Amino acid sequence: MNSKKKVSMAVVKRLPRYYRYLADLLKLGIIRISSKELSDRMGTTASQIRQDLNCFGGFGQQGYGYNVEVLYNEIGKILGLQNEYRTVILGAGNMGQALANYANFEKRGYKIVGIFDIRPEIIGKKIKDIEVMHMDKFEDFVKTHRVSIAMITVPYEKTPEVATRAARAGIKGLWNFSPMDLEIPYDVVIENVHLSDGLMVLGYCLNEKLQNQKGKGNKIV
Amino acid sequence: MNSKKKVSMAVVKRLPRYYRYLADLLKLGIIRISSKELSDRMGTTASQIRQDLNCFGGFGQQGYGYNVEVLYNEIGKILGLQNEYRTVILGAGNMGQALANYANFEKRGYKIVGIFDIRPEIIGKKIKDIEVMHMDKFEDFVKTHRVSIAMITVPYEKTPEVATRAARAGIKGLWNFSPMDLEIPYDVVIENVHLSDGLMVLGYCLNEKLQNQKGKGNKIV
Repeated sequence: MNSKKKVSMAVVKRLPRYYRYLADLLKLGIIRISSKELSDRMGTTASQIRQDLNCFGGFGQQGYGYNVEVLYNEIGKILGLQNEYRTVILGAGNMGQALANYANFEKRGYKIVGIFDIRPEIIGKKIKDIEVMHMDKFEDFVKTHRVSIAMITVPYEKTPEVATRAARAGIKGLWNFSPMDLEIPYDVVIENVHLSDGLMVLGYCLNEKLQNQKGKGNKIV
Repeated sequence: MNSKKKVSMAVVKRLPRYYRYLADLLKLGIIRISSKELSDRMGTTASQIRQDLNCFGGFGQQGYGYNVEVLYNEIGKILGLQNEYRTVILGAGNMGQALANYANFEKRGYKIVGIFDIRPEIIGKKIKDIEVMHMDKFEDFVKTHRVSIAMITVPYEKTPEVATRAARAGIKGLWNFSPMDLEIPYDVVIENVHLSDGLMVLGYCLNEKLQNQKGKGNKIV
Protein backbone atom coordinates (compact mmCIF):
# COMPACT_ATOMS: atom_id res chain seq x y z
CA MET A 1 0.00 0.00 0.00
CA ASN A 2 2.56 2.58 1.00
CA SER A 3 5.50 3.12 -1.29
CA LYS A 4 8.12 3.41 1.43
CA LYS A 5 11.34 2.82 -0.41
CA LYS A 6 14.60 4.18 0.91
CA VAL A 7 13.20 6.20 3.77
CA SER A 8 16.16 7.80 5.54
CA MET A 9 16.94 6.61 9.05
CA ALA A 10 16.71 10.21 10.25
CA VAL A 11 13.01 10.14 9.37
CA VAL A 12 12.50 6.68 10.88
CA LYS A 13 14.10 7.81 14.13
CA ARG A 14 11.56 10.63 14.39
CA LEU A 15 8.55 8.31 14.04
CA PRO A 16 8.46 7.11 17.67
CA ARG A 17 8.22 10.73 18.78
CA TYR A 18 5.23 11.36 16.47
CA TYR A 19 3.72 8.20 17.85
CA ARG A 20 4.09 9.39 21.44
CA TYR A 21 2.60 12.81 20.72
CA LEU A 22 -0.32 11.28 18.87
CA ALA A 23 -0.96 8.93 21.81
CA ASP A 24 -1.16 12.01 24.05
CA LEU A 25 -3.58 13.73 21.67
CA LEU A 26 -5.77 10.63 21.60
CA LYS A 27 -5.84 10.60 25.40
CA LEU A 28 -6.90 14.25 25.34
CA GLY A 29 -9.77 13.33 23.00
CA ILE A 30 -8.44 15.41 20.11
CA ILE A 31 -9.81 14.02 16.85
CA ARG A 32 -7.95 15.99 14.23
CA ILE A 33 -4.92 18.23 14.08
CA SER A 34 -3.17 20.37 11.47
CA SER A 35 0.53 19.97 10.77
CA LYS A 36 0.95 23.51 12.13
CA GLU A 37 -0.69 22.69 15.48
CA LEU A 38 1.20 19.42 15.75
CA SER A 39 4.49 21.15 14.99
CA ASP A 40 3.81 23.78 17.67
CA ARG A 41 3.30 21.06 20.24
CA MET A 42 6.36 19.13 19.15
CA GLY A 43 8.69 22.10 18.75
CA THR A 44 9.36 21.34 15.09
CA THR A 45 8.08 22.81 11.80
CA ALA A 46 4.91 22.00 9.88
CA SER A 47 6.97 21.46 6.75
CA GLN A 48 9.18 18.91 8.51
CA ILE A 49 6.11 16.98 9.61
CA ARG A 50 4.59 17.02 6.13
CA GLN A 51 7.90 15.96 4.56
CA ASP A 52 8.39 13.14 7.07
CA LEU A 53 4.89 11.76 6.69
CA ASN A 54 5.00 12.09 2.92
CA CYS A 55 7.75 9.46 2.94
CA PHE A 56 5.04 6.98 3.86
CA GLY A 57 2.24 8.27 1.69
CA GLY A 58 1.05 11.40 3.52
CA PHE A 59 -2.04 10.61 5.60
CA GLY A 60 -3.10 14.28 5.71
CA GLN A 61 -5.86 16.08 3.84
CA GLN A 62 -5.65 19.62 2.55
CA GLY A 63 -7.82 21.87 4.72
CA TYR A 64 -8.54 19.14 7.24
CA GLY A 65 -5.18 18.15 8.62
CA TYR A 66 -4.62 14.76 10.13
CA ASN A 67 -7.11 12.44 11.75
CA VAL A 68 -5.28 11.70 14.99
CA GLU A 69 -6.42 8.11 15.42
CA VAL A 70 -5.79 7.15 11.79
CA LEU A 71 -2.32 8.70 11.85
CA TYR A 72 -1.52 7.07 15.19
CA ASN A 73 -2.51 3.65 13.86
CA GLU A 74 -0.66 4.13 10.58
CA ILE A 75 2.58 5.13 12.30
CA GLY A 76 2.16 2.18 14.65
CA LYS A 77 1.89 -0.11 11.62
CA ILE A 78 4.95 1.46 9.97
CA LEU A 79 6.87 0.86 13.21
CA GLY A 80 5.74 -2.77 13.18
CA LEU A 81 3.92 -2.45 16.50
CA GLN A 82 1.17 -4.81 15.35
CA ASN A 83 3.71 -7.62 15.64
CA GLU A 84 4.58 -9.41 18.82
CA TYR A 85 8.31 -9.55 19.35
CA ARG A 86 9.38 -12.28 21.72
CA THR A 87 12.29 -10.75 23.52
CA VAL A 88 15.01 -11.95 25.88
CA ILE A 89 17.36 -10.01 28.12
CA LEU A 90 20.97 -11.17 28.15
CA GLY A 91 22.60 -10.01 31.38
CA ALA A 92 20.53 -9.75 34.56
CA GLY A 93 22.52 -6.94 36.18
CA ASN A 94 20.97 -3.62 37.16
CA MET A 95 20.36 -2.51 33.58
CA GLY A 96 18.87 -5.87 32.62
CA GLN A 97 16.59 -5.77 35.66
CA ALA A 98 15.61 -2.18 34.94
CA LEU A 99 14.61 -3.17 31.40
CA ALA A 100 12.68 -6.21 32.66
CA ASN A 101 10.67 -3.87 34.89
CA TYR A 102 10.06 -1.22 32.23
CA ALA A 103 6.35 -1.58 31.55
CA ASN A 104 6.36 0.41 28.34
CA PHE A 105 7.99 -2.28 26.21
CA GLU A 106 5.17 -4.76 26.67
CA LYS A 107 2.66 -2.13 25.57
CA ARG A 108 4.63 -1.77 22.32
CA GLY A 109 4.54 -5.50 21.61
CA TYR A 110 7.95 -6.41 23.01
CA LYS A 111 7.20 -9.33 25.30
CA ILE A 112 10.04 -10.32 27.62
CA VAL A 113 9.96 -14.11 27.66
CA GLY A 114 13.38 -14.95 29.12
CA ILE A 115 16.30 -13.51 31.09
CA PHE A 116 19.76 -15.04 30.97
CA ASP A 117 23.00 -14.67 32.88
CA ILE A 118 26.03 -16.76 33.81
CA ARG A 119 26.46 -15.78 37.48
CA PRO A 120 25.38 -18.64 39.80
CA GLU A 121 24.10 -16.22 42.46
CA ILE A 122 21.46 -14.81 40.15
CA ILE A 123 20.39 -17.95 38.23
CA GLY A 124 16.95 -19.04 39.46
CA LYS A 125 16.12 -15.63 40.90
CA LYS A 126 12.78 -14.25 39.69
CA ILE A 127 12.57 -10.88 38.00
CA LYS A 128 8.99 -9.88 37.27
CA ASP A 129 7.87 -13.52 37.37
CA ILE A 130 10.59 -14.63 35.00
CA GLU A 131 13.23 -16.96 36.36
CA VAL A 132 16.77 -16.05 35.35
CA MET A 133 18.24 -18.92 33.33
CA HIS A 134 21.81 -19.92 32.65
CA MET A 135 23.18 -19.01 29.22
CA ASP A 136 23.70 -22.76 28.64
CA LYS A 137 19.98 -22.93 27.94
CA PHE A 138 19.90 -19.92 25.64
CA GLU A 139 20.14 -21.53 22.18
CA ASP A 140 17.43 -24.12 22.91
CA PHE A 141 15.19 -21.47 24.40
CA VAL A 142 15.45 -19.24 21.33
CA LYS A 143 14.34 -22.12 19.13
CA THR A 144 11.49 -23.41 21.27
CA HIS A 145 10.16 -19.96 22.13
CA ARG A 146 10.71 -18.39 18.72
CA VAL A 147 12.58 -15.43 20.20
CA SER A 148 13.35 -12.62 17.75
CA ILE A 149 14.93 -9.86 19.85
CA ALA A 150 17.69 -9.79 22.45
CA MET A 151 18.43 -6.85 24.72
CA ILE A 152 22.11 -7.08 25.55
CA THR A 153 23.15 -5.72 28.93
CA VAL A 154 26.28 -7.74 29.61
CA PRO A 155 29.61 -6.11 30.51
CA TYR A 156 31.27 -4.07 27.75
CA GLU A 157 34.02 -6.56 26.89
CA LYS A 158 31.59 -9.48 26.61
CA THR A 159 29.21 -7.69 24.27
CA PRO A 160 30.57 -8.73 20.83
CA GLU A 161 30.84 -12.38 21.91
CA VAL A 162 27.31 -12.48 23.36
CA ALA A 163 25.90 -10.63 20.34
CA THR A 164 27.52 -13.14 18.00
CA ARG A 165 26.11 -16.01 19.99
CA ALA A 166 22.63 -14.44 19.81
CA ALA A 167 22.85 -13.94 16.05
CA ARG A 168 24.00 -17.55 15.56
CA ALA A 169 21.10 -18.78 17.66
CA GLY A 170 18.67 -17.10 15.26
CA ILE A 171 17.94 -13.78 16.97
CA LYS A 172 16.96 -11.18 14.37
CA GLY A 173 17.30 -7.93 16.28
CA LEU A 174 19.82 -6.84 18.91
CA TRP A 175 19.40 -3.91 21.24
CA ASN A 176 22.83 -3.15 22.63
CA PHE A 177 23.41 -1.16 25.82
CA SER A 178 27.21 -1.23 25.85
CA PRO A 179 28.73 2.09 24.82
CA MET A 180 29.96 0.91 21.42
CA ASP A 181 28.69 0.85 17.85
CA LEU A 182 28.35 -2.91 17.79
CA GLU A 183 28.99 -4.54 14.43
CA ILE A 184 29.06 -8.28 13.79
CA PRO A 185 29.21 -10.13 10.46
CA TYR A 186 25.71 -11.58 10.70
CA ASP A 187 22.40 -10.76 9.11
CA VAL A 188 20.92 -9.15 12.19
CA VAL A 189 19.48 -5.68 12.86
CA ILE A 190 21.41 -3.84 15.57
CA GLU A 191 20.25 -0.79 17.47
CA ASN A 192 22.87 0.71 19.76
CA VAL A 193 21.83 2.71 22.81
CA HIS A 194 24.35 5.40 23.65
CA LEU A 195 23.28 6.71 27.02
CA SER A 196 26.22 9.11 27.30
CA ASP A 197 25.14 10.87 24.11
CA GLY A 198 22.06 12.32 25.78
CA LEU A 199 24.13 13.40 28.73
CA MET A 200 26.56 15.19 26.42
CA VAL A 201 23.70 17.01 24.72
CA LEU A 202 22.57 18.11 28.19
CA GLY A 203 26.13 19.30 28.85
CA TYR A 204 26.12 21.27 25.61
CA CYS A 205 22.89 23.06 26.55
CA LEU A 206 24.17 23.84 30.05
CA ASN A 207 27.44 25.13 28.64
CA GLU A 208 25.60 27.34 26.15
CA LYS A 209 23.54 28.78 28.97
CA LEU A 210 26.62 29.43 31.07
CA GLN A 211 28.28 31.30 28.23
CA ASN A 212 25.19 33.44 27.79
CA GLN A 213 25.19 34.27 31.49
CA LYS A 214 28.92 34.95 31.72
CA GLY A 215 30.42 36.77 34.66
CA LYS A 216 30.16 34.05 37.24
CA GLY A 217 33.52 32.74 36.08
CA ASN A 218 33.01 29.38 37.72
CA LYS A 219 34.30 26.36 35.88
CA ILE A 220 32.55 23.92 38.16
CA VAL A 221 28.99 24.34 36.99
CA MET B 1 36.09 32.35 19.38
CA ASN B 2 33.49 30.30 17.54
CA SER B 3 30.42 32.04 16.25
CA LYS B 4 27.95 29.33 17.20
CA LYS B 5 24.65 31.10 17.22
CA LYS B 6 21.42 29.21 16.70
CA VAL B 7 22.89 25.83 15.96
CA SER B 8 20.00 23.45 15.42
CA MET B 9 19.47 20.71 17.99
CA ALA B 10 19.62 18.16 15.19
CA VAL B 11 23.27 19.12 14.67
CA VAL B 12 23.99 19.20 18.41
CA LYS B 13 22.54 15.71 18.81
CA ARG B 14 24.99 14.42 16.20
CA LEU B 15 28.07 15.80 17.99
CA PRO B 16 28.41 13.01 20.59
CA ARG B 17 28.58 10.51 17.75
CA TYR B 18 31.40 12.45 16.04
CA TYR B 19 33.10 12.58 19.39
CA ARG B 20 32.92 8.80 19.82
CA TYR B 21 34.21 8.09 16.33
CA LEU B 22 37.09 10.53 16.77
CA ALA B 23 37.98 8.85 20.08
CA ASP B 24 38.19 5.53 18.21
CA LEU B 25 40.40 7.08 15.50
CA LEU B 26 42.71 8.51 18.17
CA LYS B 27 43.01 5.08 19.77
CA LEU B 28 43.91 3.66 16.36
CA GLY B 29 46.67 6.29 16.05
CA ILE B 30 45.09 8.00 13.06
CA ILE B 31 46.31 11.60 12.89
CA ARG B 32 44.24 13.10 10.11
CA ILE B 33 41.12 12.17 8.21
CA SER B 34 39.13 13.58 5.30
CA SER B 35 35.43 14.25 5.59
CA LYS B 36 34.96 11.52 2.97
CA GLU B 37 36.82 8.87 5.00
CA LEU B 38 35.08 9.92 8.19
CA SER B 39 31.69 9.78 6.49
CA ASP B 40 32.40 6.28 5.16
CA ARG B 41 33.18 5.07 8.67
CA MET B 42 30.15 6.76 10.16
CA GLY B 43 27.69 5.80 7.43
CA THR B 44 26.83 9.40 6.65
CA THR B 45 27.84 11.83 3.88
CA ALA B 46 30.91 14.06 3.65
CA SER B 47 28.70 17.04 2.97
CA GLN B 48 26.71 16.40 6.13
CA ILE B 49 29.91 16.33 8.17
CA ARG B 50 31.22 19.54 6.60
CA GLN B 51 27.87 21.27 7.10
CA ASP B 52 27.63 20.15 10.72
CA LEU B 53 31.14 21.21 11.63
CA ASN B 54 30.81 24.50 9.77
CA CYS B 55 28.17 25.46 12.33
CA PHE B 56 31.03 25.77 14.79
CA GLY B 57 33.66 27.30 12.56
CA GLY B 58 34.79 24.39 10.41
CA PHE B 59 38.05 22.94 11.80
CA GLY B 60 38.99 21.35 8.44
CA GLN B 61 41.54 22.45 5.89
CA GLN B 62 41.12 22.12 2.13
CA GLY B 63 43.33 19.30 0.85
CA TYR B 64 44.30 18.16 4.34
CA GLY B 65 41.07 17.18 5.99
CA TYR B 66 40.73 17.20 9.75
CA ASN B 67 43.39 16.79 12.38
CA VAL B 68 41.78 14.06 14.51
CA GLU B 69 43.09 15.22 17.87
CA VAL B 70 42.27 18.89 17.28
CA LEU B 71 38.76 18.05 16.10
CA TYR B 72 38.23 15.65 19.02
CA ASN B 73 39.26 18.33 21.51
CA GLU B 74 37.19 21.05 19.83
CA ILE B 75 34.04 18.93 19.81
CA GLY B 76 34.72 18.06 23.45
CA LYS B 77 34.87 21.76 24.25
CA ILE B 78 31.67 22.48 22.33
CA LEU B 79 29.98 19.71 24.32
CA GLY B 80 31.24 21.31 27.53
CA LEU B 81 33.24 18.22 28.52
CA GLN B 82 36.00 20.36 30.02
CA ASN B 83 33.58 21.19 32.83
CA GLU B 84 32.98 19.01 35.82
CA TYR B 85 29.30 18.42 36.40
CA ARG B 86 28.48 17.37 39.92
CA THR B 87 25.63 14.97 39.45
CA VAL B 88 23.09 13.23 41.68
CA ILE B 89 20.82 10.30 40.98
CA LEU B 90 17.27 10.62 42.26
CA GLY B 91 15.78 7.15 42.63
CA ALA B 92 18.02 4.24 43.61
CA GLY B 93 16.04 1.51 41.86
CA ASN B 94 17.51 -0.70 39.17
CA MET B 95 17.87 2.09 36.63
CA GLY B 96 19.44 4.43 39.20
CA GLN B 97 21.86 1.72 40.23
CA ALA B 98 22.68 0.90 36.62
CA LEU B 99 23.50 4.56 35.98
CA ALA B 100 25.63 4.77 39.15
CA ASN B 101 27.67 1.86 37.84
CA TYR B 102 28.01 3.18 34.30
CA ALA B 103 31.70 4.08 34.11
CA ASN B 104 31.43 6.17 30.96
CA PHE B 105 29.77 9.16 32.63
CA GLU B 106 32.72 9.88 34.91
CA LYS B 107 35.05 9.90 31.90
CA ARG B 108 32.87 12.61 30.36
CA GLY B 109 33.06 14.81 33.44
CA TYR B 110 29.77 13.79 35.04
CA LYS B 111 30.75 12.96 38.60
CA ILE B 112 28.10 11.15 40.63
CA VAL B 113 28.32 12.71 44.09
CA GLY B 114 25.03 11.62 45.65
CA ILE B 115 22.18 9.11 45.33
CA PHE B 116 18.77 9.73 46.87
CA ASP B 117 15.64 7.71 47.52
CA ILE B 118 12.76 7.62 49.99
CA ARG B 119 12.50 3.88 50.65
CA PRO B 120 13.81 3.00 54.13
CA GLU B 121 15.15 -0.37 52.97
CA ILE B 122 17.60 1.23 50.58
CA ILE B 123 18.67 4.32 52.55
CA GLY B 124 22.21 3.79 53.88
CA LYS B 125 23.02 1.09 51.32
CA LYS B 126 26.21 1.74 49.38
CA ILE B 127 26.22 1.87 45.60
CA LYS B 128 29.70 2.25 44.17
CA ASP B 129 30.96 3.74 47.47
CA ILE B 130 28.15 6.25 47.66
CA GLU B 131 25.67 5.89 50.47
CA VAL B 132 22.05 6.28 49.43
CA MET B 133 20.58 9.26 51.30
CA HIS B 134 17.01 10.16 52.14
CA MET B 135 15.40 12.84 49.96
CA ASP B 136 15.00 14.89 53.15
CA LYS B 137 18.67 15.77 52.80
CA PHE B 138 18.50 16.59 49.11
CA GLU B 139 18.13 20.39 49.16
CA ASP B 140 20.97 20.93 51.64
CA PHE B 141 23.19 18.55 49.73
CA VAL B 142 22.67 20.40 46.43
CA LYS B 143 23.77 23.64 48.07
CA THR B 144 26.78 22.36 49.97
CA HIS B 145 28.03 20.19 47.10
CA ARG B 146 27.21 22.61 44.30
CA VAL B 147 25.32 19.95 42.34
CA SER B 148 24.30 20.95 38.81
CA ILE B 149 22.76 17.84 37.26
CA ALA B 150 20.15 15.35 38.45
CA MET B 151 19.43 12.04 36.76
CA ILE B 152 15.81 11.23 37.53
CA THR B 153 14.94 7.55 37.76
CA VAL B 154 11.93 7.66 40.09
CA PRO B 155 8.59 6.03 39.17
CA TYR B 156 6.70 7.62 36.29
CA GLU B 157 4.00 9.34 38.34
CA LYS B 158 6.53 10.90 40.73
CA THR B 159 8.68 12.37 37.99
CA PRO B 160 7.16 15.87 37.58
CA GLU B 161 7.09 16.41 41.36
CA VAL B 162 10.71 15.27 41.86
CA ALA B 163 11.87 17.30 38.84
CA THR B 164 10.20 20.41 40.24
CA ARG B 165 11.84 19.86 43.59
CA ALA B 166 15.24 19.50 41.90
CA ALA B 167 14.78 22.69 39.88
CA ARG B 168 13.73 24.60 43.01
CA ALA B 169 16.80 23.32 44.83
CA GLY B 170 19.01 24.90 42.17
CA ILE B 171 19.73 21.99 39.83
CA LYS B 172 20.46 23.29 36.31
CA GLY B 173 20.11 20.18 34.19
CA LEU B 174 17.70 17.24 34.43
CA TRP B 175 18.14 13.92 32.72
CA ASN B 176 14.77 12.22 32.81
CA PHE B 177 14.32 8.47 32.36
CA SER B 178 10.54 8.33 32.67
CA PRO B 179 8.83 7.82 29.32
CA MET B 180 7.43 11.37 29.06
CA ASP B 181 8.50 14.65 27.55
CA LEU B 182 8.97 16.30 30.92
CA GLU B 183 8.19 20.01 31.05
CA ILE B 184 8.23 22.15 34.17
CA PRO B 185 7.95 25.94 34.48
CA TYR B 186 11.53 26.46 35.69
CA ASP B 187 14.72 27.68 34.08
CA VAL B 188 16.29 24.27 33.80
CA VAL B 189 17.64 22.27 30.86
CA ILE B 190 15.81 18.96 30.42
CA GLU B 191 16.95 16.00 28.37
CA ASN B 192 14.41 13.20 28.13
CA VAL B 193 15.55 9.64 27.51
CA HIS B 194 12.99 7.65 25.57
CA LEU B 195 14.21 4.08 25.73
CA SER B 196 11.21 2.71 23.84
CA ASP B 197 12.02 4.91 20.86
CA GLY B 198 15.15 2.92 20.06
CA LEU B 199 13.22 -0.30 20.41
CA MET B 200 10.57 0.97 17.99
CA VAL B 201 13.26 1.85 15.45
CA LEU B 202 14.57 -1.69 15.84
CA GLY B 203 11.01 -2.93 15.24
CA TYR B 204 10.75 -0.82 12.10
CA CYS B 205 13.95 -2.29 10.67
CA LEU B 206 12.85 -5.84 11.49
CA ASN B 207 9.45 -5.23 9.94
CA GLU B 208 11.06 -3.82 6.78
CA LYS B 209 13.22 -6.91 6.52
CA LEU B 210 10.23 -9.17 6.99
CA GLN B 211 8.34 -7.44 4.22
CA ASN B 212 11.30 -7.86 1.90
CA GLN B 213 11.44 -11.56 2.70
CA LYS B 214 7.69 -12.18 2.39
CA GLY B 215 6.28 -15.62 2.10
CA LYS B 216 6.74 -16.79 5.64
CA GLY B 217 3.38 -15.33 6.55
CA ASN B 218 4.10 -15.45 10.26
CA LYS B 219 2.83 -12.57 12.35
CA ILE B 220 4.88 -13.56 15.35
CA VAL B 221 8.35 -12.54 14.21
